[in-house]
Amino acid sequence: MRYIRKNGLFKAYQWDWWNKKKGKPPWRIWVGDLGKWIESASYTIALNEDKKLAVKIKKAINCLIKGQKEDGYLYPNPLMREQVFANLQEYHELYEIGHDIEAAVAYFQATGNTYFLKAMCKTADLLCQVFGRGKGQKRGYDGHPEIELALVKLYNATGNKNYLNLAKFFIEERGRKPYYFAREMKLLRKRGLPFFGWYKDEYSYSHRQAHKPVREQNEPVGHAVCLLYLYSGVADVAAITGDKELFNVCKRIWKNIITRRMYITGGVGSCPERESFTFDYDLPNENAYAETCASIALIFFAHHMLQIEVDSQYSDVMERVLYNAVLSGVGMDGKSFFYANPLAVYPEALKKLSPHRAGVRQKWFGCACCPPNIARLLASLGGYIYSTSENTIYVHLYAKGELNINFYGVNVKIIQETDYPWDGKVKLWVETAHPSEFNVAVRIPGWCRNARAMINNKKVDLKSVTKKGYAYLSKKWRHGDIIKLHFPMPVECVEAHPAVRMNAGRVALQRGPLVYCLEEIDNGKNLADICLVDRNNFKLFKRNDIKGEYIAIKGKAKRRVINYHWKNVLYRFNKSKEETIKFVAIPYHLRAHRKAGEMIVWIRSEK
Amino acid sequence: MRYIRKNGLFKAYQWDWWNKKKGKPPWRIWVGDLGKWIESASYTIALNEDKKLAVKIKKAINCLIKGQKEDGYLYPNPLMREQVFANLQEYHELYEIGHDIEAAVAYFQATGNTYFLKAMCKTADLLCQVFGRGKGQKRGYDGHPEIELALVKLYNATGNKNYLNLAKFFIEERGRKPYYFAREMKLLRKRGLPFFGWYKDEYSYSHRQAHKPVREQNEPVGHAVCLLYLYSGVADVAAITGDKELFNVCKRIWKNIITRRMYITGGVGSCPERESFTFDYDLPNENAYAETCASIALIFFAHHMLQIEVDSQYSDVMERVLYNAVLSGVGMDGKSFFYANPLAVYPEALKKLSPHRAGVRQKWFGCACCPPNIARLLASLGGYIYSTSENTIYVHLYAKGELNINFYGVNVKIIQETDYPWDGKVKLWVETAHPSEFNVAVRIPGWCRNARAMINNKKVDLKSVTKKGYAYLSKKWRHGDIIKLHFPMPVECVEAHPAVRMNAGRVALQRGPLVYCLEEIDNGKNLADICLVDRNNFKLFKRNDIKGEYIAIKGKAKRRVINYHWKNVLYRFNKSKEETIKFVAIPYHLRAHRKAGEMIVWIRSEK
Ligand SMILES: [Zn+2]
Ligand SMILES: [Zn+2]
Repeated sequence: MRYIRKNGLFKAYQWDWWNKKKGKPPWRIWVGDLGKWIESASYTIALNEDKKLAVKIKKAINCLIKGQKEDGYLYPNPLMREQVFANLQEYHELYEIGHDIEAAVAYFQATGNTYFLKAMCKTADLLCQVFGRGKGQKRGYDGHPEIELALVKLYNATGNKNYLNLAKFFIEERGRKPYYFAREMKLLRKRGLPFFGWYKDEYSYSHRQAHKPVREQNEPVGHAVCLLYLYSGVADVAAITGDKELFNVCKRIWKNIITRRMYITGGVGSCPERESFTFDYDLPNENAYAETCASIALIFFAHHMLQIEVDSQYSDVMERVLYNAVLSGVGMDGKSFFYANPLAVYPEALKKLSPHRAGVRQKWFGCACCPPNIARLLASLGGYIYSTSENTIYVHLYAKGELNINFYGVNVKIIQETDYPWDGKVKLWVETAHPSEFNVAVRIPGWCRNARAMINNKKVDLKSVTKKGYAYLSKKWRHGDIIKLHFPMPVECVEAHPAVRMNAGRVALQRGPLVYCLEEIDNGKNLADICLVDRNNFKLFKRNDIKGEYIAIKGKAKRRVINYHWKNVLYRFNKSKEETIKFVAIPYHLRAHRKAGEMIVWIRSEK
Repeated sequence: MRYIRKNGLFKAYQWDWWNKKKGKPPWRIWVGDLGKWIESASYTIALNEDKKLAVKIKKAINCLIKGQKEDGYLYPNPLMREQVFANLQEYHELYEIGHDIEAAVAYFQATGNTYFLKAMCKTADLLCQVFGRGKGQKRGYDGHPEIELALVKLYNATGNKNYLNLAKFFIEERGRKPYYFAREMKLLRKRGLPFFGWYKDEYSYSHRQAHKPVREQNEPVGHAVCLLYLYSGVADVAAITGDKELFNVCKRIWKNIITRRMYITGGVGSCPERESFTFDYDLPNENAYAETCASIALIFFAHHMLQIEVDSQYSDVMERVLYNAVLSGVGMDGKSFFYANPLAVYPEALKKLSPHRAGVRQKWFGCACCPPNIARLLASLGGYIYSTSENTIYVHLYAKGELNINFYGVNVKIIQETDYPWDGKVKLWVETAHPSEFNVAVRIPGWCRNARAMINNKKVDLKSVTKKGYAYLSKKWRHGDIIKLHFPMPVECVEAHPAVRMNAGRVALQRGPLVYCLEEIDNGKNLADICLVDRNNFKLFKRNDIKGEYIAIKGKAKRRVINYHWKNVLYRFNKSKEETIKFVAIPYHLRAHRKAGEMIVWIRSEK
């Protein structure tokens, strides 16, 4: 918040219509950031009373509302009247409004207070007027998707079907020929209005998933965050409207991501220059972008899919992303952040790159997309752990805490006790006001080979009750029933598909949901040369040289000896002498906490 | 030549002084290209009479001379009078003049005709006037080094010491504080003259080796071609002036290049964005730039060093570069070229990049630095094979051909018969007018473990006569004496230094001077996954599916089987099934002749 204020974002909304006499208007790239902050802060006060924070939120909301034009229009960049919704491709006004709508819904749900929600409905009503297939309406859509999922949230909060229909409209129009963005740019040129002109052909439209109609899209292409926001919205619309074709598009895109374009950490978007997806199995370790925001957006997408069909392929990815790519993005101090989350770091190579790809986490700065996104994810995490359907309480993720719900008139409480992700033992206490028949469906993690479960110390035959990765524990639950889950967590050596050229001959160490890495501070320089010699003998040990205790892995490896043979020699014909070493691996998300240095996830492995 | 004319380069020199009324002058990036072409064509007519070519050369020279201003000034870009030598950092006028001087010297040596040489002396005299430490003189130097070595050539051809002194001046001034380039840009701004303004601090000056005085430079940094041209000139000046300190700078830079920053192919300059050196052991295979021009410049540098001290470390590199990085740059048709010479190619990854980094060789195009550079190197190759000193005839490189010289009044002819680089047997027939005592010093290639030599079928004890990689064969040579050399060429598995992170766990195959590679057309996709299993058993076989016959290597390897386990799976815990395969490797310089596809030089190797 301090950073947001310092950057002058509050003032940014308080502009009068611009005109040419005023010269060139200032340009800010915080579009959407204030909304994200209000949203995350609202989740926080929903969980715990925090009067100071509540006051800050009100201030921020008032500032937003005060900046709203009479017709409901809202945007932090000063524009001329004729620029409004005239450059959707580049200005991302709908993206801004989308985040403000999400914020308003979150605030409403946190406080029951409707004034912000009403204000944003006014804006949404304006959109319903401006956009559509009617006479005088625009058949456009935003360069940066996000409004689609926001409108569905607003529909869910208000029941106003117009918002759902508008979301549907944006999705159906996207990528149709003739391209709206092409017509738009032509018009901008004709009217002498400003535009950047970066994107102007089918290839560049694919950067914004606007190269072909959504129903015809097969591959995750272009800007990763855009794609994942878009398909979160598409999944929502598919779910609510029961549109199977649309849901199948989502499944296609989903499947391609997780089977071809996702890092083992759950990072996505391997191209740093374009923050985008590239091609199948192209997952460079050192040059990975894997923006924190994109990982968060992948969790959103997974969560939306999970709400349509309960299948652990979605929650497994949520877990993978959360414990690795996302946690890597935020420091244990909670105040420093990585935008890029590469799977190998060589400090000298980073010197050539931008601060967004630094070797140590940075304070919240300039183009601050990731930090507020992390904030809103972590603040709302509770909503990802459990869900309910007709007669089932789902446990998607494991974390200490409790769930209190009224389940068909019965107050049910589930207390979860666990040291997850450090330990695979989970205890679930069930407390019910009176005995009641329902399912408790617990996710059997995809990484677990030998899951075991007991109810009141009686073994459950998991095979017979597990469907799509969830074990449906069904009985008349009584107060004090105890479910014990045990997910053994040996160290696993993970291989990547043979087409991932970067990881041939290498394995990554994973224990439970945590991906591990080697750091220079533990293992010296030239990490790439270290080679596992024993895939079956690892030792676990506890360490506390980073805030809190964590479990490190020790194992046997070899590396070449840099002796006199290598003095002033770059290439040699003879086989080098090797030495056996002990290496230490730490969880990937704890990387770069002690000292900037080399880091690798994928370790050479013979045999 | 056809390409040069088509691009309008001939016309480019025929401009009158520009002035602001004429609007913005056209800008061309062919600076130096016409000179390079005249130079290479002159080498060609020196070897074989070619009247048609001679006429073409004259035309080109006349065009150059016709474009010369009254005072000797010469440049293919129209400038205003006040722009002359006012933007050395960016306009590279001295680089242009340098290439024209080299051309004039080559033409003079080929034909004995002095008119072009005289014209260029006029230009050089102008430089002697304009540059210097005297009153009213400029203490500047060019952004792109090259004039230094050209002036030494002109000094050698004419004996005019002013040219040597000017070369020395440029070298001594380079990189001194206050920076000339900084003062220059300030002045340009003040006078309202155009400049691009790309480089403006110490770091960016290092791109042009102008960040500190030459005598204090330790590392090869910045633009690779610039650095290598500069140090070729520095070596020349050091040699002629006997300046040991300056020579030691050259040795430092040389040593760093070949022990830390050179690809196994002899490519240098690993950074594609800046065409530059990066840092020690940073030799990415797929993203290598390794521009053909830079490799050629490395041969120049090596050759200049070799002329100062005969040591096979220089000629070994000349050979390595020539047979790998340089030959890779030109197609077997002699008409298509690579600018970048990466050590691994994945076609889909190239799609993201510029045509300069294409998967197939391109015709001579736009910014045509490499093709004319290759032409002038290959046309002058004879000069690299042999050299003489007091009482020694040196054989630096092995290639079919003959040397005719008058050695202290005795006509000596050395006929070299060999199938090098395909076969390591070399026969040297010595023919002398009468018996004569001298050394024939033959290079023992650094890649050869068991060199053998015989004179008239009598074995020579090589150990006792070899010094710095050259075997000095000394006797009274008689007509008909035969030297037989045998350099056995087994297939060698080369390791890179453990700090070259990209090549850990990998080897490159080398046979004789030739580095080999795997191509998709022979070995299928996913080359990165192929792993040598036997470092000692290779089979050689002849193939002729590319123009001419070549020797391919067959060997045993393994790769993972992509079976049902990998269907829609990106990461797996279990060890994959492997299969044994036969792989085929071909010489690196013959890559991309059959079909665009994957290619790798560094192959995984266990054990
Ligand atoms: Zn971000
Ligand atoms: Zn070039």
